[in-house]
Amino acid sequence: MARWQPNAAERLALAALELFAERGYENTTVTDIAQRAGLTKSTFFRHFQDKREVLFGGTLNGLLAEAIAGAPESATPLEAVACALDALGRHAFTPARREFVARRRAVIAANPELQEREALKGLGLTASMTEALRRRGVPDLTACVAADLGALAMTIAYERWSDATDGDDFGEVARRALDEVQAALPQGLNFRRA
Amino acid sequence: MARWQPNAAERLALAALELFAERGYENTTVTDIAQRAGLTKSTFFRHFQDKREVLFGGTLNGLLAEAIAGAPESATPLEAVACALDALGRHAFTPARREFVARRRAVIAANPELQEREALKGLGLTASMTEALRRRGVPDLTACVAADLGALAMTIAYERWSDATDGDDFGEVARRALDEVQAALPQGLNFRRA
Repeated sequence: MARWQPNAAERLALAALELFAERGYENTTVTDIAQRAGLTKSTFFRHFQDKREVLFGGTLNGLLAEAIAGAPESATPLEAVACALDALGRHAFTPARREFVARRRAVIAANPELQEREALKGLGLTASMTEALRRRGVPDLTACVAADLGALAMTIAYERWSDATDGDDFGEVARRALDEVQAALPQGLNFRRA
Repeated sequence: MARWQPNAAERLALAALELFAERGYENTTVTDIAQRAGLTKSTFFRHFQDKREVLFGGTLNGLLAEAIAGAPESATPLEAVACALDALGRHAFTPARREFVARRRAVIAANPELQEREALKGLGLTASMTEALRRRGVPDLTACVAADLGALAMTIAYERWSDATDGDDFGEVARRALDEVQAALPQGLNFRRA
């Protein structure tokens, strides 16, 4: 009866997206989501803790941390962060997933509870990058700053890439965003006057 | 009967802190908090939406935004942010409130739900600073970066100041932290190689 579903989590997330868009997050139950996905409620709870989690499966923390750990030894902190953004483009924000990501973004933007969850997940990603940079021997504060700037570039790239219709590669969009963030630094940011 | 309590919010927050520390956040009810403060449950709900909010009254968003707006016209974005941190020291993180802040921090650190709330409030403060910088005519991305760096300095200063026992002024601790964040920028952050 309970056969293993290789892509159950993805099917549940897609079903949830459809239902949230159709009738709203508040008016959708876990049973509705499982039914739409052609799965059982217990399969749902094997994959997600609650309804709010269904759009936040598949954490990206490990992907980012591994890419930073695997960056060339000579890479500066921001270059290591750029490697992490490239990895997102190769493994998570692939061209095939762009439409899903865009729909997910729209559903989250419409619900404060989901926005909170998204914001907290974002802070978790920044913390993972900071920790991975520290493990490369980057001093604490530099690791924090580089991860913060990387997170900002990631957010900008995420919005641009999921909005785009011309099929840009996420990694490229993200590297451009990181360049812009970097370029914004000297412009009037100077705190200590000469 | 229901006399106006000029410092009801503060009394409720203090009572909540005591109870959370004594018996834990989960084992404390709104009724317990109101009772300990010598107030009624309805007074509690005039000040706070729910139990989780009792430690998060008195938003600092307006204080930060006003200080950034009031910074000298010639101030760079980070100098305007430094003015906001000074204002926190003068109006919110005053020497008299240090012990309260330290106890609040300990209670929050012990509860994931409160940590989430604190993290989200932090994101709100960053957004307020970004918006206030934009209204000064600072370009979007520079405003984001300056507010992010300011938020990082604020977090560092908040931890140091509430840990300190030598009565350092919050504004001074924060300016030193902002200096350090600034100094961390060139160190190996360079992304584009010459």
